[in-house]
Amino acid sequence: MAIRVESDSMGTINVPAEKYYGAQTARSLANFDIGGEKMPVEIIRAFGILKKAAAITNHRLGLLDEATRDLIVKAADEVISGQLEGHFPLVVWQTGSGTQSNMNVNEVISNRAIELAGGTMGSKKPVHPNDHVNMSQSSNDTYPTAMHIAAVEAIEGYLVPRIERLRGTLASKSEEFMDVVKIGRTHLQDATPLTLGQEMSGWVAQIDLAMRAIAVTLPQLRELALGGTAVGTGLNAHPDYAETVAAEIARLTGRDFITAPNKFAVMAGHDAFVGSSGGLKQLAAALMKIANDVRWLASGPRSGLGELTIPENEPGSSIMPGKVNPTQSEALTMVCTQVMGNDATIGIAASQGNFELNVFKPVIAYNFLQSVRLLADAAQSFNDNCAIGIEPDRKRIGEHLNNSLMLVTALNRKIGYDNAAKIAKNAHKTGSTLRESAIALGLLTGEEFDAEVKPEQMVGPLKR
Amino acid sequence: MAIRVESDSMGTINVPAEKYYGAQTARSLANFDIGGEKMPVEIIRAFGILKKAAAITNHRLGLLDEATRDLIVKAADEVISGQLEGHFPLVVWQTGSGTQSNMNVNEVISNRAIELAGGTMGSKKPVHPNDHVNMSQSSNDTYPTAMHIAAVEAIEGYLVPRIERLRGTLASKSEEFMDVVKIGRTHLQDATPLTLGQEMSGWVAQIDLAMRAIAVTLPQLRELALGGTAVGTGLNAHPDYAETVAAEIARLTGRDFITAPNKFAVMAGHDAFVGSSGGLKQLAAALMKIANDVRWLASGPRSGLGELTIPENEPGSSIMPGKVNPTQSEALTMVCTQVMGNDATIGIAASQGNFELNVFKPVIAYNFLQSVRLLADAAQSFNDNCAIGIEPDRKRIGEHLNNSLMLVTALNRKIGYDNAAKIAKNAHKTGSTLRESAIALGLLTGEEFDAEVKPEQMVGPLKR
Amino acid sequence: MAIRVESDSMGTINVPAEKYYGAQTARSLANFDIGGEKMPVEIIRAFGILKKAAAITNHRLGLLDEATRDLIVKAADEVISGQLEGHFPLVVWQTGSGTQSNMNVNEVISNRAIELAGGTMGSKKPVHPNDHVNMSQSSNDTYPTAMHIAAVEAIEGYLVPRIERLRGTLASKSEEFMDVVKIGRTHLQDATPLTLGQEMSGWVAQIDLAMRAIAVTLPQLRELALGGTAVGTGLNAHPDYAETVAAEIARLTGRDFITAPNKFAVMAGHDAFVGSSGGLKQLAAALMKIANDVRWLASGPRSGLGELTIPENEPGSSIMPGKVNPTQSEALTMVCTQVMGNDATIGIAASQGNFELNVFKPVIAYNFLQSVRLLADAAQSFNDNCAIGIEPDRKRIGEHLNNSLMLVTALNRKIGYDNAAKIAKNAHKTGSTLRESAIALGLLTGEEFDAEVKPEQMVGPLKR
Amino acid sequence: MAIRVESDSMGTINVPAEKYYGAQTARSLANFDIGGEKMPVEIIRAFGILKKAAAITNHRLGLLDEATRDLIVKAADEVISGQLEGHFPLVVWQTGSGTQSNMNVNEVISNRAIELAGGTMGSKKPVHPNDHVNMSQSSNDTYPTAMHIAAVEAIEGYLVPRIERLRGTLASKSEEFMDVVKIGRTHLQDATPLTLGQEMSGWVAQIDLAMRAIAVTLPQLRELALGGTAVGTGLNAHPDYAETVAAEIARLTGRDFITAPNKFAVMAGHDAFVGSSGGLKQLAAALMKIANDVRWLASGPRSGLGELTIPENEPGSSIMPGKVNPTQSEALTMVCTQVMGNDATIGIAASQGNFELNVFKPVIAYNFLQSVRLLADAAQSFNDNCAIGIEPDRKRIGEHLNNSLMLVTALNRKIGYDNAAKIAKNAHKTGSTLRESAIALGLLTGEEFDAEVKPEQMVGPLKR
Repeated sequence: MAIRVESDSMGTINVPAEKYYGAQTARSLANFDIGGEKMPVEIIRAFGILKKAAAITNHRLGLLDEATRDLIVKAADEVISGQLEGHFPLVVWQTGSGTQSNMNVNEVISNRAIELAGGTMGSKKPVHPNDHVNMSQSSNDTYPTAMHIAAVEAIEGYLVPRIERLRGTLASKSEEFMDVVKIGRTHLQDATPLTLGQEMSGWVAQIDLAMRAIAVTLPQLRELALGGTAVGTGLNAHPDYAETVAAEIARLTGRDFITAPNKFAVMAGHDAFVGSSGGLKQLAAALMKIANDVRWLASGPRSGLGELTIPENEPGSSIMPGKVNPTQSEALTMVCTQVMGNDATIGIAASQGNFELNVFKPVIAYNFLQSVRLLADAAQSFNDNCAIGIEPDRKRIGEHLNNSLMLVTALNRKIGYDNAAKIAKNAHKTGSTLRESAIALGLLTGEEFDAEVKPEQMVGPLKR
Repeated sequence: MAIRVESDSMGTINVPAEKYYGAQTARSLANFDIGGEKMPVEIIRAFGILKKAAAITNHRLGLLDEATRDLIVKAADEVISGQLEGHFPLVVWQTGSGTQSNMNVNEVISNRAIELAGGTMGSKKPVHPNDHVNMSQSSNDTYPTAMHIAAVEAIEGYLVPRIERLRGTLASKSEEFMDVVKIGRTHLQDATPLTLGQEMSGWVAQIDLAMRAIAVTLPQLRELALGGTAVGTGLNAHPDYAETVAAEIARLTGRDFITAPNKFAVMAGHDAFVGSSGGLKQLAAALMKIANDVRWLASGPRSGLGELTIPENEPGSSIMPGKVNPTQSEALTMVCTQVMGNDATIGIAASQGNFELNVFKPVIAYNFLQSVRLLADAAQSFNDNCAIGIEPDRKRIGEHLNNSLMLVTALNRKIGYDNAAKIAKNAHKTGSTLRESAIALGLLTGEEFDAEVKPEQMVGPLKR
Repeated sequence: MAIRVESDSMGTINVPAEKYYGAQTARSLANFDIGGEKMPVEIIRAFGILKKAAAITNHRLGLLDEATRDLIVKAADEVISGQLEGHFPLVVWQTGSGTQSNMNVNEVISNRAIELAGGTMGSKKPVHPNDHVNMSQSSNDTYPTAMHIAAVEAIEGYLVPRIERLRGTLASKSEEFMDVVKIGRTHLQDATPLTLGQEMSGWVAQIDLAMRAIAVTLPQLRELALGGTAVGTGLNAHPDYAETVAAEIARLTGRDFITAPNKFAVMAGHDAFVGSSGGLKQLAAALMKIANDVRWLASGPRSGLGELTIPENEPGSSIMPGKVNPTQSEALTMVCTQVMGNDATIGIAASQGNFELNVFKPVIAYNFLQSVRLLADAAQSFNDNCAIGIEPDRKRIGEHLNNSLMLVTALNRKIGYDNAAKIAKNAHKTGSTLRESAIALGLLTGEEFDAEVKPEQMVGPLKR
Repeated sequence: MAIRVESDSMGTINVPAEKYYGAQTARSLANFDIGGEKMPVEIIRAFGILKKAAAITNHRLGLLDEATRDLIVKAADEVISGQLEGHFPLVVWQTGSGTQSNMNVNEVISNRAIELAGGTMGSKKPVHPNDHVNMSQSSNDTYPTAMHIAAVEAIEGYLVPRIERLRGTLASKSEEFMDVVKIGRTHLQDATPLTLGQEMSGWVAQIDLAMRAIAVTLPQLRELALGGTAVGTGLNAHPDYAETVAAEIARLTGRDFITAPNKFAVMAGHDAFVGSSGGLKQLAAALMKIANDVRWLASGPRSGLGELTIPENEPGSSIMPGKVNPTQSEALTMVCTQVMGNDATIGIAASQGNFELNVFKPVIAYNFLQSVRLLADAAQSFNDNCAIGIEPDRKRIGEHLNNSLMLVTALNRKIGYDNAAKIAKNAHKTGSTLRESAIALGLLTGEEFDAEVKPEQMVGPLKR
């Protein structure tokens, strides 16, 4: 492997010649041989945005010349687009401030800019990783800024559309099946009827509540630490820097980022991620319930509830038809348990700040972004491979409804509570339907029964 | 013990004569001899409000006569005021729908109303626990309604004022100490200076973020399930019931409760508590950081950081003065770990709904309300017994600041980076201050040093 | 209220005359008005044992005269028996070392001993709370010792017998129903058959695994910190004290306690509780699965699985027979979610030790002992009110089995895979049984079918 | 990209020509486009072992001919060695039974064996993925078997040696510094002295306790599900299969695997992972405490505790010497928070089994193996890059010790408690040392003070 010599304040070190990263990245690789979980790509992309915004702002404030700005912007654009992916090899388990990933980005942008300028990589000329790319910044304010940018982009740009897709499918299924009357179930026991559309409307409403719960936590994630520099005071930064760079980031991303009114809080704590992860966990709880309902309602084919059918995506039993494993529910519920664990990690990590810095930044970012990604992907997979194909088994639904003893309450008015109870008890004992029991006991004719017991009139408040 | 015979559909059972509760409460006591955690008083109080609102609404809709309404209202008022406390003996670990606590309230109100009317307790006349007190209701919609009422009241009425008190103390301390320049610390290592007031402003901002994070989750808790009856369809309820009773609850409590637009979601899931508990966990993370900062800054008296002094509330060492254990920080951080565990329980429990009902309601209510109560109480205790007495040890703070090698950066401009570094390295090697080192190396006089190194000018962005 | 004046090194303070506790307890009550969770009674009892053992040991080592020893032992015996319960009012949320509860016990034993000796309460003569009751001890080593004693006693003395009871019930049900062939279910889908007894044997085995997992963690809980005194070095303790007092505690409790080989570890960390709580969580996971299986198998009465019947303990629907809510499963599963949250709290709290002390002791003890108590009680309640009454609905089980399409695999040998699949597909399409389908397709007579398809031969490995 | 046509019971599908996997893997890739977390390599390797053992066993029991066995064994060996890594592209978020990864392995071994035999890939001849590679198996028993094999191998083969290395370093440091007397700290406050070696011995003992806690949970992980086939009954398996194949796995791995006495429990629950993860969490709690102690003791360089120095691995401040960020502690503590979250996920997932199967298998495996890997790697990194270079700053330690007011207790004997307290109070007030204060007050000469106050005699029990 061809190598290149790079240097930092500790001396020189060899790096692969084809990589843009420099000495500090190379040291981190050697010092932190832990697991294989890479710094999330969303963080790298956010760093690209941040470095670009900083260069533009530094130029605007008269601190950086136009040529250097343009070189940084060009290289940063390549970071943003993802085309330099192989140049960010560091793992999550590094310095707790994310310093080394900040330096990784500085080094890559510096060397790529040098290359664009026709210079010698590693020479730090004409674009210096610290003096130019990291100008007016500290790892302590850039990393949390990247965390916030990445989190907002992931939620708004990735999670929301995918969840909306599932929400849309369920909403239209709910409308489609609004007249399919079925047995309700509470405590897993037969209860009064509702329609399948009503049942599904509850799923939609749970998703809506969760998405709103996530949305309301976003304002605190839109507050950026950039401009706080090393300890939050903004030492060495231009007085207009913090506001200007936040506005630039907002412009570049098209999202409402602002500078944090208090920098100390957003560098020393990452509590905002706790609240937002709580929103993600709310979504996980909702999706777990929905996915469970789907697989239970589709259980069978003979000895389960069998009220829904779902698409068959994989070979089930070749000899036994009708056995469709609810694999999408399984993948989705596994994701939900992952999100719950991630939330636990985020809570602990966020509580462990000391003085001017929380040094659990990468683990918070890793878990938060994994939760967002998994929820988004699993919801989309569940939608595309399961939800869109959900159909009611109207025959089975009808049998359950007609077999139900809960409908007996509809007879109170006509024949009194005691006679109604008699019919139900006889049906329970003999295993017959209420209708059969009513006729057998001579309390009602079949026609009279049908006239009184109308499940479709039991799915809402009293009509008066 | 004098006994009274009460009955329900399963038959008769003895209850203590002096208790208002009836047969179903007595059965629950016998069937659920588990732990000692009582149904939270906030839930009982919320049930009182709910039963009162239901009676008023049922009368308004022409379903309940005035005399019965008045009796129920009177008895419910006693439940609300807490004066019937000893009559609610049931534990959290009961039916997962909270049915037995709903019946407990029905029975107590019924018997107390009967007593007020001069009737015979247990006779169910003239006020029947089911037909009158529980009219237009089901456990399945009352218990979640009580959960929501209790949660909003606990947060707005109990948590907010207590946290505001602590926030106020810290904010005024922050202002008071805004000019006390001190060493900053990142990675637990000496960093550039800031003021004690700035450091404390970060604490205030963390609390503000957390309280906002909690506040934005309240809207979903203001949505009430009442009117959904057994499965969410509202069967057997008057069409105007749900909206009317929610408005009545809003009127009685003076809080913005509304009827949930979708009843299925709020009976089958309790995801709202997940999001709100996430807000509580955010507060716990913030308070954990603050309490830790306080105890570390007050560590010593000789061999710790010693930059703050805190009140001495208990006997420390009788022979050794100055050893003040940070016991309020300890109580508060223990509470924070409890809130984190409670949040885990809430998340799991909320995800376990099936079909039309989540049957983990009491455990969710118990954990949520415990979190609110403990955060509120511990914050108040921390405020009253610690925060209000926090004082800087200006001598120690000054020593740390003046000993710091971080101030050397202020010399770059005057004598160049290399000479500045030389001073720092010499100081590190010899254990001297920068000032001593600068003089010893002949690079600056004491006066020149003092003119350049002004920590108070290093606590903000560059002045230009 | 009559009061008495008590004093400590901070001065005097009033206490209720009828209480044995003294100044430090009174101060703690004033300083920690947080929640209502009392220090667990198991901890108080363990402190009684510990104080008794210390007095006996101190006398044996020549440090305490016989009369004082006897007075302390008598008072400690009353603490152990629980008869002084009202004298321990402190909450969990106090000093993180549990100092105030240690002093509470010292004060109560001192004053009760003084009373027994005919002295004046509060005079500290002839039995001084510090000099005599706390002799050779520090809160820092007594509280963790009490935690360990309480934990082992709670598990061995309380949890094990209650779980064994449930285990015994399930094991005998498993034997009783070992020949009841039923449909198996994987992915909630019909699968090959097994017997109900086999299914239940899995429950028993899960409990056995969990109880063994708990048992193997006990050795580390048997290691006692006593003798470490303030920082683990044993300063001011007699060289033979640690071993002697551990042996005395073992003698008094009849359990295998030993002195911890390394005192620093067991005062600064409480990691042992993490491992043991992991065992409790394993039990919770097992019980959650079992309780869920029971309620699903008992779901119905018409539109559920309906393979088991469970006792009806509370009024269900008065008009609708057969609807039995699985309330014991609900209470038990709620307990399981609580145990999971408690485990999260314990993990965080145990990780937060610094230097010579972990100051999250009371919150660890509170959560651990709550988990033990709730698991034990809920298992017993589930046993007594549900498990002992579980019966198979043999009719329903038979229908499910005979309806199953999974049995078709038994025909491969006789008519080949293709014909077998043809029968299954036809049965699935027409909704008939395999037998009906086989006859309809003319592939087998009823007799031939019955001779081949014997579910009871499909519940084990091939016989050869 | 060159493609190959593969088929399964659902029809044909294209796969990349250079990949060994077949139709079911390709379908899974299409159906589960969720996240990027691959099925852990430890699971793939364990599957290789399992498939090899199954082939050998099937041959031994007369079910598989020698040639087929040999082909399977050869291909399986390549899976075990890791050389087929790129052929296992499936993610964790798939069928909850891990079916698709089982099929992935079957397909790869089949096609590789076919290739070795000179056949046509995809032809399923002469080695069929189901009939031969999966013979006597079901996903439902193979996946949990792979989980158990992988877990035991990861703990014994990977975690134990890495932790032992750190343990060894700390133990020898503890011995080396056994005579370095230093101030103790409880509640973060100065306490009585101990030696640095003693303090470190506590770390070693915490690790020892944790490793024992992990070890005692291994027996339940050694119990293998293989032989249970689809639902635990062993249907279609040879009666001797289960025991024989477990023995073969034991032989191949050199580890004590046995067949699970009850297959239902280990397929329907994965509670064993809960208990073992509890052990991992105990280790995380211990390491968190140790890593925190190290970074606090190394805090400074001027305004921290500064009692330890740690290696400088990355550039700190170029101008400010002595600022060494404790980055290894940061990486390690982040890992510890991850392990705590993973444990939460495992607990929930393991509790969600139904009837004959738990379908959260892959998420359990993923989290458990990540915890093991991260703990092992982070401990090794912490050892190699930090622990081995820990040195005491004897000067600073001495200053802290000599400044301490806690040593005053040593004077009680000589001059009485009151005079000793007087010296301490004067020292506290004037900021002097005890020695200076004693001389200033005329209570002792310097020589007398030195003769009495010997910290090195305060680090153990009384000598008599």
